[in-house]
Amino acid sequence: MRRSRVFMPTLKENPAEAQIVSHRLMLRAGMIRQASAGIYSWLPLGFRVLQKIEQVVREEQDKAGCQELLMPTMQPAELWRESGRYDDYGKEMLRIRDRHERDMLFGPTNEELITDIFRNSVRSYRELPKLLYHVQWKFRDEVRPRFGVMRGREFLMKDSYSFDIDFAGAVRSYNKMFVAYLRTFRRLGLKAIPMKAESGPIGGDMSHEFIILADTGETGVFCHRDVLEFPVPENVDYEGDLQPIVDKWTSLYAATDDMHDKSKEVELGDQLVTARGIEVGHIFYFGTKYSKPLGAMVTSAEDGEVPVEMGSYGIGVSRLVGGIIEASHDDAGIIWPESVAPYKVGLINLKTDDAACRQACDELYAKLQTAGVEVLYDDTDERAGVKFAEMDLIGLPWQLVVGPRGLKSGVVELKRRAGGERQEISPESVLARLIG
Amino acid sequence: MRRSRVFMPTLKENPAEAQIVSHRLMLRAGMIRQASAGIYSWLPLGFRVLQKIEQVVREEQDKAGCQELLMPTMQPAELWRESGRYDDYGKEMLRIRDRHERDMLFGPTNEELITDIFRNSVRSYRELPKLLYHVQWKFRDEVRPRFGVMRGREFLMKDSYSFDIDFAGAVRSYNKMFVAYLRTFRRLGLKAIPMKAESGPIGGDMSHEFIILADTGETGVFCHRDVLEFPVPENVDYEGDLQPIVDKWTSLYAATDDMHDKSKEVELGDQLVTARGIEVGHIFYFGTKYSKPLGAMVTSAEDGEVPVEMGSYGIGVSRLVGGIIEASHDDAGIIWPESVAPYKVGLINLKTDDAACRQACDELYAKLQTAGVEVLYDDTDERAGVKFAEMDLIGLPWQLVVGPRGLKSGVVELKRRAGGERQEISPESVLARLIG
Repeated sequence: MRRSRVFMPTLKENPAEAQIVSHRLMLRAGMIRQASAGIYSWLPLGFRVLQKIEQVVREEQDKAGCQELLMPTMQPAELWRESGRYDDYGKEMLRIRDRHERDMLFGPTNEELITDIFRNSVRSYRELPKLLYHVQWKFRDEVRPRFGVMRGREFLMKDSYSFDIDFAGAVRSYNKMFVAYLRTFRRLGLKAIPMKAESGPIGGDMSHEFIILADTGETGVFCHRDVLEFPVPENVDYEGDLQPIVDKWTSLYAATDDMHDKSKEVELGDQLVTARGIEVGHIFYFGTKYSKPLGAMVTSAEDGEVPVEMGSYGIGVSRLVGGIIEASHDDAGIIWPESVAPYKVGLINLKTDDAACRQACDELYAKLQTAGVEVLYDDTDERAGVKFAEMDLIGLPWQLVVGPRGLKSGVVELKRRAGGERQEISPESVLARLIG
Repeated sequence: MRRSRVFMPTLKENPAEAQIVSHRLMLRAGMIRQASAGIYSWLPLGFRVLQKIEQVVREEQDKAGCQELLMPTMQPAELWRESGRYDDYGKEMLRIRDRHERDMLFGPTNEELITDIFRNSVRSYRELPKLLYHVQWKFRDEVRPRFGVMRGREFLMKDSYSFDIDFAGAVRSYNKMFVAYLRTFRRLGLKAIPMKAESGPIGGDMSHEFIILADTGETGVFCHRDVLEFPVPENVDYEGDLQPIVDKWTSLYAATDDMHDKSKEVELGDQLVTARGIEVGHIFYFGTKYSKPLGAMVTSAEDGEVPVEMGSYGIGVSRLVGGIIEASHDDAGIIWPESVAPYKVGLINLKTDDAACRQACDELYAKLQTAGVEVLYDDTDERAGVKFAEMDLIGLPWQLVVGPRGLKSGVVELKRRAGGERQEISPESVLARLIG
């Protein structure tokens, strides 16, 4: 895409309303614009990142045997009355009355609706296990939405739901999501630590939050330093036994503020890392909490009809855009991991009125595009300094700088955004490098 | 995907609530389930089709130079008060009050919001033209939602918006969308005819509905029979002059019920085709209708500040799923065009307890999947008749039938769903055919 054409309204000044760095950088880079409090439009640059994150999440869910569907944003109140949550949920739930005076709501989560779909479709243990997910916009009417997409009101979430005939099956489903989450966050360039979370009235320890460490995180976190170095499994057989992986990852201490056990501070001493964290995922086993009241029964091999065992598993897709920036930026701007960068390469023409520069840039642009490399080509007549600053701000992994002096010596400059290393290199070699 | 694993709750009986064939077939094939009146969950099979249609629409928008972004579902009422539409829109608009008593609405369309984004970002004619689009769920609170996804309340729509400095520019943008729509519907296997539509208070003839012909269509349509054979342009240079294409396609009579000129019936005689049609797209030039009240001004080269010239361009993405089925089905079920089929091939094992059948099927399945061909593999122990009926119902383009008798002679059977032709063929040849 040519810079002269792309709709990317960057800001020179820091917007006053942004309190944290990801919000500030997303506004400045022209990734988002506020539509109303806590509700954003995703402009092309931001939308590309959002889509890439969504795609990584999707691929890892699919690998784990989870099937994608799509539930609507609007849900009938009756279902939530059946589960008893309609009154419990409070003012965060956006309640709506339609033209026929029927109570509806903008879904903040989907346990009721997926249980309704399940109870109308599945009858027998022979059809289990089932893992279903969707990626859909949710709404929670926060009192004080803030921090941009990190705590917005309308947000994109991936939520999966598991259905099993018994507890042993539910554990296998839980473990699949546990491992899929480790892999998902790793692919997004994040180090996410599963931490024991409140498991609610059901008890047991089948609830984990996945937390990334970032100085600006909302939560205090405590974990054994070795957890930070645990290996994320590469080739996973999701039909095999995943318990050893889960056991390993839960073998050392890791807890958020509200679950923290003070005695661990003495016990672990300088092995304990104290940091700030951002929750990016949450997995949760809740047994028959919804299947019982909603009557989602399946015939088992021996016991007649039993309520199905369930769990739910969420990833905050739009929140991750902010989370990744919080974890990966410097004073000049964003530093995207390659897996979610809106473009891989920023191509800068330093002198657009120079025929040689223009020709070299046009050729590089055409060849990179033909090879399927995503390029943002700054073909404008802005000053070099402005171009460099903007490329640093939007954080593409590679900057390819073409100027008249270099060209005379047959070289262009390649800069890696992450480390800042620069290299003079021939156009041929740079193509081999970026395409390879 | 294996049939034994996929979540595809088909129905044996015709659901009583479905009045038209697409609604009936989508329910029977397990593509959708109703969540509440006019609101559907898209189960995996239906979701795959929805995604494929969305992707075709997206690719053709991108080719035409339209840039994708994503606006939220919830919009602030103030913007609609600025344009004057908040009171005009009536009961179809879902109005909501948030916890702070602010008026909001679930967007039925996005002219106001995109104009707001534009006015806050673009100042000069030098940044024009701009074509922006998004694919987002919309809500219209129909009095009597019916016909499944054809007239639902929550529906997925692609809506584009053009911004130009003057009328000549607006015509160029309009033509781009006109041609992109011809190509989009063609790729979806549809014959969509642009028909002159009500252009509203602005006048002129810059408004066309794109209508597909189907016996169950909601609208009566009239058109010169030659229009049905006009060629859809193959390789389009969207920067070139598209007027000749638009002129050609609008050179002969084509109108819906409400725009129909009775005198044409005599004039055209048996050259006039009278049929039923379904609207799948609508393109519309509206000048400064929103830019003026919302103050979306740009500096022009000569005239100082002028309100930007706009148009909007919609495609009913979720409605198209039903529309394609209405246009392409038989008594046995759906007949998907390959471009949007949920899977390309249905592989049927006729005798799952036969080792040779199982081995042959497993091999075909593995090889097709490795080659990137999407396969639904019926590995269940249902009776052959049930399997055939279900494959016909869900309408995959190719059925590959493996039975013990054929295998002994070294052949499998390949059936094309569309024409019903069957062919006995070696496994090697069938792979070459389906992969090639």
